[in-house]
Amino acid sequence: MTVRLYELAGDADDRLFSPYCWRARLALAHKGIAHETIPWRFTEKDAIAFSGQGMVPVLQDGAREVHDSWAIALYLEETYPDRPALFEGPQARALAYTLKTWVERSVQPQIFRAIMPDLYAHLHARDQAYFRESREKRFGMTLEQFGADPRGAITALRTALDPARLAVAAEPFLCGAAPAFADYMLFGAFQWARVMSPAQLLEPGDPLCAWRERMLDLYGGLARKARGYPV
Amino acid sequence: MTVRLYELAGDADDRLFSPYCWRARLALAHKGIAHETIPWRFTEKDAIAFSGQGMVPVLQDGAREVHDSWAIALYLEETYPDRPALFEGPQARALAYTLKTWVERSVQPQIFRAIMPDLYAHLHARDQAYFRESREKRFGMTLEQFGADPRGAITALRTALDPARLAVAAEPFLCGAAPAFADYMLFGAFQWARVMSPAQLLEPGDPLCAWRERMLDLYGGLARKARGYPV
Repeated sequence: MTVRLYELAGDADDRLFSPYCWRARLALAHKGIAHETIPWRFTEKDAIAFSGQGMVPVLQDGAREVHDSWAIALYLEETYPDRPALFEGPQARALAYTLKTWVERSVQPQIFRAIMPDLYAHLHARDQAYFRESREKRFGMTLEQFGADPRGAITALRTALDPARLAVAAEPFLCGAAPAFADYMLFGAFQWARVMSPAQLLEPGDPLCAWRERMLDLYGGLARKARGYPV
Repeated sequence: MTVRLYELAGDADDRLFSPYCWRARLALAHKGIAHETIPWRFTEKDAIAFSGQGMVPVLQDGAREVHDSWAIALYLEETYPDRPALFEGPQARALAYTLKTWVERSVQPQIFRAIMPDLYAHLHARDQAYFRESREKRFGMTLEQFGADPRGAITALRTALDPARLAVAAEPFLCGAAPAFADYMLFGAFQWARVMSPAQLLEPGDPLCAWRERMLDLYGGLARKARGYPV
C-alpha cells in the first residue's frame, strides 16, 4: 500500500521547504516507512480538499488520511508501534508538545524574519501573490517590513535557541542519545531555512551546528541531499 | 538516616522562596522522602562550605552531599529507583533539560522583573546588601531600574508562557497525566513569586491558573501551605 505525503514545494518540485512537512518526512524515515512525495503549492487547495482543510502536510496511508504534522506523528506512533518510537512514552510526548509551541512561537518567527526575501523569491510564481496577501494580513505589515531587519532577527534567534543549545551541548540530540520527534520539530525549522536561503543562522562553533550536521546525516543524508543551500 | 535540605529563606525561617529549592523540595515529596529543612541565607556561605560552592539547594542524604537542583533530581532518581520516577526515561529527562533552560532564561527573568520590590522587601535584613550588590552587578543596573516596569514584565511573561499554556490546556500537567520534574521546574518559578509577592502573574481563566492550583494541591498541599500570598 502506497504512503503518500503532500508536501509544500517552491519554485521546483523538489524544493520542499515547509518545516511542518519536514517533521512528517523525518517521522516517516524514523519509522522506516517509504513514501511518495506529492509536491503541492499554497494555491492548490483543491488537491487536498479531501482532507477537509487547506494545509500540508497531508498523509495518505492507504485509505487513511491524516493532516497536521503533530497528528501525523501520533498516527504513525499508534499505527506502527513495532517500528522505532517517535516518543519514549506519554511523558516524553507531553514534553515534546511543550517544545512544539516553543519552536513555533520563539524560533520559527525569527527565522521567518531572517530569510523572508529569499523565501519569497523561491516560492513558485503562482504562489507569490497568495503568500504576500495572506502573510501581510497575518503580520499586519508588508513582507518587506517584516523582513527588514534580518540581522536583528538572527541575533534574537540565537538567544531564543539557548534551551536547545544547552541541551545538545550536553547530549547529542534534544531527545538524548538518539533523535526523535522533538529533534525533527526543531530541525524542520532549520531545514526550512536551508532549502530557501543561504543565511547563516548560527555562529560557527555553536553546539547547534554540530547537532544540525548530525540531523543532516540521518537516514542516508535525507535532509542533506534535499535541494537547498549548503550551510 | 536523616535527609537534610538547605533551603533559601527570607525574612522568616519558613519563608522559603528559591525556585530551585522548590524543585528539590517537590522532587523529595514526589519520591516520598521526608526531609528536614535547614533555613539558609545568601550570606551564610560558611554553612554550606562543605558542598564546595555557595548556592542552595544543598542536599545531605546521610554521608552524601549533592547541590544544584538538577543534580539533586538525577541523584534521587538514581538512588531511589523504586520510588516514583521523576523522569519517564532518558528521552523525557533530555527534554526536561531543554525545558529547564527555557524556564530559567524565558520565564524566571520576567518574574524577577515583575516582583522585584516585594522580593527585596521580604529578604532577611542581613541579606539585602549582598543581594543588591550581587544582582546590580549581574544586571548592570540598579534593582529599581530592573524592576521599573512590572506591567511590561507581566505582559512579556504571559507571552513567554505560551508553550506551557498550550501544554496544560491539552493535558493536566506538563508531563502529561501526572506531574513530574518538568512541572516542578516551572512551578518553582511560580512558587518563588507566590512566597514573596501578591503580584497577579496570570490572567484569571488562563489554563496555567488551573495547573498551578493542581500543583498547589500536591502532596497534601505542600506548596499551598507554605508561607506566601494566596493567588
